[in-house]
Parts: sequence; structure tokens; C-alpha cells
Amino acid sequence: MTYCAALGLKDGMVFASDTRTNAGVDHISTFRKMYTYGIEGERSIVLQTAGSLATSQAVFTRLQNAIAQRAEHNLLTVLTLFDAAEMVGKLVREIITKAEDLANDSTSGTFGSTFMLGGQIKGQQTELYMIYPEGNCIRASEDTPFFQLGESKYGKPILDRSVNYDIDLHHAAQAMMLSFDSTIRSNLSVGMPIDMVIYKADSFKLPSIRRIRENDDYFSDLSKYWSDALRNTLLGLPDYPEDYWQ
Amino acid sequence: MTYCAALGLKDGMVFASDTRTNAGVDHISTFRKMYTYGIEGERSIVLQTAGSLATSQAVFTRLQNAIAQRAEHNLLTVLTLFDAAEMVGKLVREIITKAEDLANDSTSGTFGSTFMLGGQIKGQQTELYMIYPEGNCIRASEDTPFFQLGESKYGKPILDRSVNYDIDLHHAAQAMMLSFDSTIRSNLSVGMPIDMVIYKADSFKLPSIRRIRENDDYFSDLSKYWSDALRNTLLGLPDYPEDYWQ
Repeated sequence: MTYCAALGLKDGMVFASDTRTNAGVDHISTFRKMYTYGIEGERSIVLQTAGSLATSQAVFTRLQNAIAQRAEHNLLTVLTLFDAAEMVGKLVREIITKAEDLANDSTSGTFGSTFMLGGQIKGQQTELYMIYPEGNCIRASEDTPFFQLGESKYGKPILDRSVNYDIDLHHAAQAMMLSFDSTIRSNLSVGMPIDMVIYKADSFKLPSIRRIRENDDYFSDLSKYWSDALRNTLLGLPDYPEDYWQ
Repeated sequence: MTYCAALGLKDGMVFASDTRTNAGVDHISTFRKMYTYGIEGERSIVLQTAGSLATSQAVFTRLQNAIAQRAEHNLLTVLTLFDAAEMVGKLVREIITKAEDLANDSTSGTFGSTFMLGGQIKGQQTELYMIYPEGNCIRASEDTPFFQLGESKYGKPILDRSVNYDIDLHHAAQAMMLSFDSTIRSNLSVGMPIDMVIYKADSFKLPSIRRIRENDDYFSDLSKYWSDALRNTLLGLPDYPEDYWQ
């Protein structure tokens, strides 16, 4: 499986993806599931994926080739992020349809991949999209400022409780790390390293991926601090009234 | 959906089940998913379920009828909890097979139900079993002291972090409540009221269910205390090093 999450906030965006892929528990590998695109000072785009690795890699490769070959429409030339999301959606559909035709299997959903695309183009707001295997997409809003992909349930409570549109990027990044920490502890199919990007609104900086590995001092400290705090909080909870269980 | 969890600990056991059932989002009802059986001073048994409500209710009814009709083998006469778990497993299989035959559908799994059975019989240890729709069962151990059923992922991280075999019943019950609180906040298909039982090892008291409703003062206090503590912990986390994102 996979766990990816992206936060679209007032101050900017936070993206994180794990890197574990598995075909059965005895076939586990590490693959990048996050790619970045941009023109310094003009646009900054992050693309994440979960689902069929073959489909996802084909999409990334086609997007990359379009840029390398200076195709008329590529991620560095599209006018809006909505156009970028639609471009990815169209590509996903093409690749899935081709794979289904080849395998003569259009019902199993084996080839499905879902994407999240976020970032900013000069003169426009930051935007975050979820792009479905069907090719269509939805946009995050102030009411629903984050999206998750894959093994999302373990890490959802902490985001639900702590992330809102107005949270600053520093604390948002910490909440994101703890959401991943919770998921990794509870589910074997999500694993380190974690790829993470923080994008500050209106910075138009090329996004750079920080790869957080198992021996990352700060991540380990954060995880330990959080665990200890939870344990202490649990020990300090208000007692229930004496007659509560009668 | 459903969320049920049961903890089998050194000092005793904690059981909790939500009461929401749904067939589509527009057909939501409240049904009990936890039943208790016992003989004061001799045995104490709690049974929980998730899955097809029709199958679960048929199992509960058949178990109840066996007791009422003083059948030779019923939950109040079986010699061990393992026998009780096997009895439930056999019943589940019978009922599922009958329903599948009637509907001429043995592949969809539509009629599946899973059960958890825990408690204690005089002269024996406390025991906790998970009983599968296939009719077989597994027992919890010191290494894996809790089982969950249904919508279990949201509430797993808090149990993973806080519950071990040696935790006292008071804190175990609080952790259980917070596991439900996290689940209910993040998933619409799990809802109040929550049915909860605490069983103290070697007490052989008839288990009594506490029904925790939406307006429960203590549960609300606990939830608020936990939320505030998490938020404060998040605000107080160690800052990342200045060059961390470079």
C-alpha cells in the first residue's frame, strides 16, 4: 500500500508520501511516489500518487517526456493548475485504458492510480487537486484543507484534530509527520523513507524534496516526544465518577 | 459499519461496541451489538459482533433460546470459553450457510459476521476470542492483548501506543473511550451510543453494560481534555533544525 497526504493551507502547502510498495508481503520495495516540477519564480508543482505503480510510473514518465520534448502542453506551460490536473487526468485515463485493453480486463480495477497535484502558478492562488482514476478531479477548500491517498485511516484522526486552513506551516509539517508516524506504527504496508515538501505561498521556489529516513534524528525525536506526551496525557486524564460503571 | 474492540489484560477485560448500523448512508439505525451472559459467582461472558446484522441477530437469538430452553449445551453450561467460542463459530456457519442457500449466493460474503467473545469461567483464566465467519477462532495473548472489529483503523494508533497487557483497567477503559472518540470523529458510519463493559478478573460478576450516550458528561470531558492536550502537545513539539528543509 501507500500513504500520501497533502495540506492546502492559507500560508502554503505541505506534501508527504511514503515510499513502500508491495505486491504481497514478500515483495516489498522502495519507490518514489512524489515528483516535483517548476520554474523558479514562476511556478511550483508537486505530484503524488497511490495505486498501480505501473500506471503511476507511466504517467510520471509521460509528463517528464512532454517537458523534455518541449511539447506544446506540458506541466511547465499550462496556464492554470486546473489545466495541469486535467492533463494528468487525461493521461491516467489513456494509460489505464491501454493497460486494460492489453490485459483484456476492464473490471478488476487492477490498473487504477489516483493522484494529488498541488502548487502555485504566478498570479494565481495555491491550489490542491485530487485526480481520480476516472480522469476527473476535485479541489481542496478552506473547509476541507487536506486530502489523503491510500492507507489513510490510521493517520486521519491526528489531521482531523489538528489541521485547519489557518494553521501555520511549521505546525502543519509536524502534524503531517505525526500522521505518518501513527500510520507506520500501525500498518506494515506503509514504510520509511518519507518524501516531504513544504511550499510557502507566493514563494514560487522550486520545490525540493526532503527524504526522511529511518535514522532521521528529528523525526525520531518528534515521534518519541509525541508518544511520551500521549502516554502522560493518558495517565493524567480525569478519573471517571465513582458510580460511572454501576 | 461498526467499531468494536476488546482488551484482554492481566487485571481483566474491557469491551466496547458502537451501535450504528447502516445500509447506505440514508438508512442508519441504532442496534445493540453486544450481549452479556453469566451466572453470578461462576461465569461472566461478553459477546460482540460486526457484519451482517441479520446473521448477528440470528446468532444472538439462537444462543438466547438455547439458554431459555435449557439446551444441554448453552453459554451457561459449556465447560470452557474455548467451547463457547466453538459453539458460536458452529452457529455462525450454520446461519450463514442457510442464508447463502436461500439467496443462492455463496460468493459475495454478504451474510458474513465476525464475533468477539471474552470473559471468565470459575477455576479458569480470563480469555478473549475472535470468531471468524468461517467458524474458526483465535485467542488473544499477552503479546496481542486486544482485538478490533469493523471500522478499526482510526482507533488503532491510540490502542497501539497505550495498551499493553499490564495496563490497569481504569486507564485501559479511558484508552478505549478515546479510541472510540477518534473513530467517531473521523468516520460517519460509527456512532454513539457506545456500549461498554469492564470485567475485573476473578470477580465473576454478571457483566453490566454501560451505555454511553452523546450527552454523557464524562465522555465529553474526556474527549475535550484529550483534544486540548493533543493540541497543546502539537504546539509544544520540538522545533525542527533550521537547515532541516534545505
